[in-house]
Amino acid sequence: MNERSLLEQIQSRSASLESRFPDALVVGPGDDCAVLRSPSGDLSLVGVDQLIVGRHCTPDTPVDLIARKAIARGVSDIAAMGGTPTWALAAARLPTRYPHADELFDSCAKWAEHWGCPIVGGDIATGPGELALSITVAGAPHPARGPVLRSGARAGDLVAVTGPIGDSLSTGWHLNFEPRITEARLLCDSLGPDLHAMIDISDGLGLDAHRVAYASGAVIEIDSERVPARDGSASPWRDRFSHGEDHELLVTFRPDGIPPGSLTVIGRVRAPEPDEAPGARVISLDGTIAPGSELGWDHG
Amino acid sequence: MNERSLLEQIQSRSASLESRFPDALVVGPGDDCAVLRSPSGDLSLVGVDQLIVGRHCTPDTPVDLIARKAIARGVSDIAAMGGTPTWALAAARLPTRYPHADELFDSCAKWAEHWGCPIVGGDIATGPGELALSITVAGAPHPARGPVLRSGARAGDLVAVTGPIGDSLSTGWHLNFEPRITEARLLCDSLGPDLHAMIDISDGLGLDAHRVAYASGAVIEIDSERVPARDGSASPWRDRFSHGEDHELLVTFRPDGIPPGSLTVIGRVRAPEPDEAPGARVISLDGTIAPGSELGWDHG
Repeated sequence: MNERSLLEQIQSRSASLESRFPDALVVGPGDDCAVLRSPSGDLSLVGVDQLIVGRHCTPDTPVDLIARKAIARGVSDIAAMGGTPTWALAAARLPTRYPHADELFDSCAKWAEHWGCPIVGGDIATGPGELALSITVAGAPHPARGPVLRSGARAGDLVAVTGPIGDSLSTGWHLNFEPRITEARLLCDSLGPDLHAMIDISDGLGLDAHRVAYASGAVIEIDSERVPARDGSASPWRDRFSHGEDHELLVTFRPDGIPPGSLTVIGRVRAPEPDEAPGARVISLDGTIAPGSELGWDHG
Repeated sequence: MNERSLLEQIQSRSASLESRFPDALVVGPGDDCAVLRSPSGDLSLVGVDQLIVGRHCTPDTPVDLIARKAIARGVSDIAAMGGTPTWALAAARLPTRYPHADELFDSCAKWAEHWGCPIVGGDIATGPGELALSITVAGAPHPARGPVLRSGARAGDLVAVTGPIGDSLSTGWHLNFEPRITEARLLCDSLGPDLHAMIDISDGLGLDAHRVAYASGAVIEIDSERVPARDGSASPWRDRFSHGEDHELLVTFRPDGIPPGSLTVIGRVRAPEPDEAPGARVISLDGTIAPGSELGWDHG
């Protein structure tokens, strides 16, 4: 069983968690972050991501970029809920006699503070094997809009992305991407309740669009030729849509809402036909339709 | 550099973090948990711990006990601040083609809910190497007493432990320990502001007592023969004090406070003499004095 199936299976078994812990838990496993409620009613967002060298970056990646990517992935999940990062925790498994520990932790601290989520605690273990970081990031949802979930897409919505898609590996974007915190806040500010759903495009545009559609019980249709490419890339759209690590936001919103200028509309949301399953479809210029669920990458 | 020195170095560099993030951060790196403040003023506790198979337990450890230990370590850190667990996050690095993933996650979920901190999110990656779990646990401090820190010990305090110390490896206690959540709450209830300092004994009684003394700018004297041994163990006290993974609480409190019956008093707190450094000393029956800082185990 691959990581994606395993995670989906675990999430499906956690489906009743909110009803069993109604005081503290607003949204459990299955979205970019969990949503928690404090005793006084303050909402917060939390999530955890791992970065394993050799898996999520090559062993020759500079330490500062390893740290940057580890923190940025967690920050991007907070952005995907419309949130602002507030704090982080870092757990590291260091290779035996790892010579760059100081530099690694300085870089993690620097990037975490850069995005507003100081590292408030952590854990270190050493042992054989590659460097692995496990980063917990918390955030505060937008005060007016509240947490933006995957499940809010509605028939009639437009579907848009915050930036170009594809070639994140060949261009180094997967190490240098800018988490869309500011864009997410502007979307919440300007669209308010008309901003219906949002997700961090980490596992491929097709798969992540599928996740929004599935969670919303809707169909998302994407016009492949409308999806912006990075730096005039001529990669076939299937390649561009499948790799992932774009870390742009995919957004759905009311068609009469006025989105900020930085969005590119790439499709629309409709209700499923009778007997049609919810999900995303990517429609090519020649009219062929590819299911989004088959256009993802199993990063783990 | 070992893990302990590395962690101490990182913590010393994070010393000004509270002053730079005064709204959200009450206590930063260096205690059992960080203490955070929500916009409405609710305090919460968070910490992260790793469990790496081959390092923190043997590869033949039953999956349910691996999960139990991973969750219990985090819960014990919450107990050490006088808190009640509220939620958890789990990140797992699974060996390639790991056959027990379902059982592992069911067990993690079961133990987390058992101690009141449902797993609200997580991450999975597979790859070569042993199973590694990174568990974030959050909690709520005692509503009246507030978070109990390491740094509150005062000259004149009595020093006590919540249970026997030592032989955690040979007896299997390190896999089966019961985090002292209930005891911590009772201590907060009964001692209130007279409960001055608390720590989770994870790295050895001597070293953890040293940490309390050092953080408090005080000297802790422990009478070795007063420290309760597990099941009549005849292990030399040096062995019993050094291994750790006892996961009992070490507590300091006003001598006229009336502690619950389950505590065993093992020593006292005094002010350092002129030119004496803060720290813990273990005093044997024959009068020899061992520095607590040299009686710990570097678990990572």
